[in-house]
Amino acid sequence: MKAIVDKERLLKVLSRIQAVADKKSSMAILSTVLVEGREEKLTFSATDLEIGYRGTLVSDIEGEGAFCLPARKFYEIVKSFPKENVVIETADGEGVVVRDLDEDLAYRLAVFPAEDFPSLPEISGEAMIDIPGETLEEMIEKTIFAASTEEARYALSGIFVTREGDDKLRMVATDGHRLSLIDREVPGVESLDLSEGVIVPRKAAQEMKRIAADEMVVRIGVRENHFLLASSEGMLMARFIEGQFPDYRAVIPQESGRVVVFDRAKLSEALKRVTLLSTEKYKVVRFEFSPGEVVLIGTGGELGEARERLTVAYEGEPFTINFNARYLLEVFNVMASEEVELDIGSERTPCRITGSKDEGFMALVMPMAL
Amino acid sequence: MKAIVDKERLLKVLSRIQAVADKKSSMAILSTVLVEGREEKLTFSATDLEIGYRGTLVSDIEGEGAFCLPARKFYEIVKSFPKENVVIETADGEGVVVRDLDEDLAYRLAVFPAEDFPSLPEISGEAMIDIPGETLEEMIEKTIFAASTEEARYALSGIFVTREGDDKLRMVATDGHRLSLIDREVPGVESLDLSEGVIVPRKAAQEMKRIAADEMVVRIGVRENHFLLASSEGMLMARFIEGQFPDYRAVIPQESGRVVVFDRAKLSEALKRVTLLSTEKYKVVRFEFSPGEVVLIGTGGELGEARERLTVAYEGEPFTINFNARYLLEVFNVMASEEVELDIGSERTPCRITGSKDEGFMALVMPMAL
Repeated sequence: MKAIVDKERLLKVLSRIQAVADKKSSMAILSTVLVEGREEKLTFSATDLEIGYRGTLVSDIEGEGAFCLPARKFYEIVKSFPKENVVIETADGEGVVVRDLDEDLAYRLAVFPAEDFPSLPEISGEAMIDIPGETLEEMIEKTIFAASTEEARYALSGIFVTREGDDKLRMVATDGHRLSLIDREVPGVESLDLSEGVIVPRKAAQEMKRIAADEMVVRIGVRENHFLLASSEGMLMARFIEGQFPDYRAVIPQESGRVVVFDRAKLSEALKRVTLLSTEKYKVVRFEFSPGEVVLIGTGGELGEARERLTVAYEGEPFTINFNARYLLEVFNVMASEEVELDIGSERTPCRITGSKDEGFMALVMPMAL
Repeated sequence: MKAIVDKERLLKVLSRIQAVADKKSSMAILSTVLVEGREEKLTFSATDLEIGYRGTLVSDIEGEGAFCLPARKFYEIVKSFPKENVVIETADGEGVVVRDLDEDLAYRLAVFPAEDFPSLPEISGEAMIDIPGETLEEMIEKTIFAASTEEARYALSGIFVTREGDDKLRMVATDGHRLSLIDREVPGVESLDLSEGVIVPRKAAQEMKRIAADEMVVRIGVRENHFLLASSEGMLMARFIEGQFPDYRAVIPQESGRVVVFDRAKLSEALKRVTLLSTEKYKVVRFEFSPGEVVLIGTGGELGEARERLTVAYEGEPFTINFNARYLLEVFNVMASEEVELDIGSERTPCRITGSKDEGFMALVMPMAL
């Protein structure tokens, strides 16, 4: 087989591929990319057994071939390739040569047999729907940070994707201490099998976000136990996390009637300042509300204590409540609204955060008992 | 004591201070900054027992005081301080308060006793000479990379600073595999006690480079067992490394008569490409010279092999020689000349690298036997 491909297009496919391939696996084949050339089409596949990606390039091809190359190294070679065209050629003896047309630069690479590569689901003509890349990117960004990073809480380590009403796509993530939820209208969503909801793993969601960020429109779908994302250049297949996502509706509190509006940037900066002395993982901040102001207090154990006073439009009874500043900051960080509304109930109910410019978005953060 | 200081000026002093303070020491006092206020002068000192730094700010001060604060935290507090003026005030009971004028933001900090802080040399009226900041920065940058990072080779783990002739300052660094040397004319250098040469530790040299980069002119000097660098804002005192720097003059080879001129950028890029498959610490590249060209060959063990052909103005006998590409790249990386001259003798003599736009600079790199 001998194929000549455009460097930039190849690079884009390989950047997806190397993100999916499992560099740390003890199975060497999972760190490779399967290259298949036939009938003017070059196909590149990678998988870590949870996520699969398959990308296709149209190309001049002589002959046929199928082999596996180290995904990371192949990507690096193409990334630093000095010419516009890349020749991929099976060598006379063994291996594959990646070179320029003039043969000034040539990499002779050892290959792994194509037969050893795990098979990916064959997807064709499934029901998939369009979604603007920007919308999908935003939905993932506004939820993924709240997913659990604890290995043991498997069902919480991804984004729960479901349908809300007939026309809305909903994503929810939670680690038990905070929760993030976003709804967006997506025409055709009722045709996807999402009524029970599915859990998309964090790594897959991250990769979907990157792909979505690069595309005007992508297509999403559900097939058996995979969530699918198709773009102009390839298809991502993410195996669902098996397990029961918690009944998140049960933890969404009623309106408490105590809503405080903050300037998002000012509160974020103040939270960072009063937690500067914190040495612990949990950066506890005490909010002492009184009419017209709130004093934020962060303690740093032996180091000392920080206090900052902010003016707020609060006129009710004085009250005190503690939050993990990191959880609040991660919410504010993904929001777009200049002003954020904190609906603060009791010490035992989650605080509900919304903003008028963050359409369909709501976050919950549990207060901390001290 | 109560002092009011300008945030930006304080930040600049503290950024030097926190770079010198030893965050990892088992002696907690070494991670602090000693703050001394008296007679309109605030002095800030830090040391890791090898390097000391003392910075001074003129300020409004009521009363006197001396105490130690955690250097890193104090720096972070000032860095994120939201107001132009910072008030530093000893608290009624214990500790120190760092706050704004309106008391909207206040850090109450525990202090360490000033008496526990190690004493720094008192420097005054020593013979010091001017050197442009840019010159000192360049001299350090062009040598420090060649210094040894091996703990065991103590005498090689810094920059050897000496005088060459009457009017040149010379810096030399080597790790035994490569060597870097630069000479620059510096008026007055004959007045410094540098005829035997002194070894400035790597960390001190790094910090001197940062200070020099920020200043038009700095002053340097030698006093007993310290190298001194004074800027508008403070003084760095670096204790010499004790030990014998090797006789570097003995390893500088005669001209071999075999000089090959390379485009620095092109050779650098090619070296990076042919070592992409290398998995080892030493990125060996074989240079196969023949009239008009050189072929660079990098091997990646089981992964494969990379070859790149470059056109060069070489017309002698074919020959082959191996280099560690990393050593060559680190030399090219600090050079400014578009074209570099490699004087390549035998396999057993160091290759000598110079460039017409790199005044007073010479690097040596030993070939590798395979």
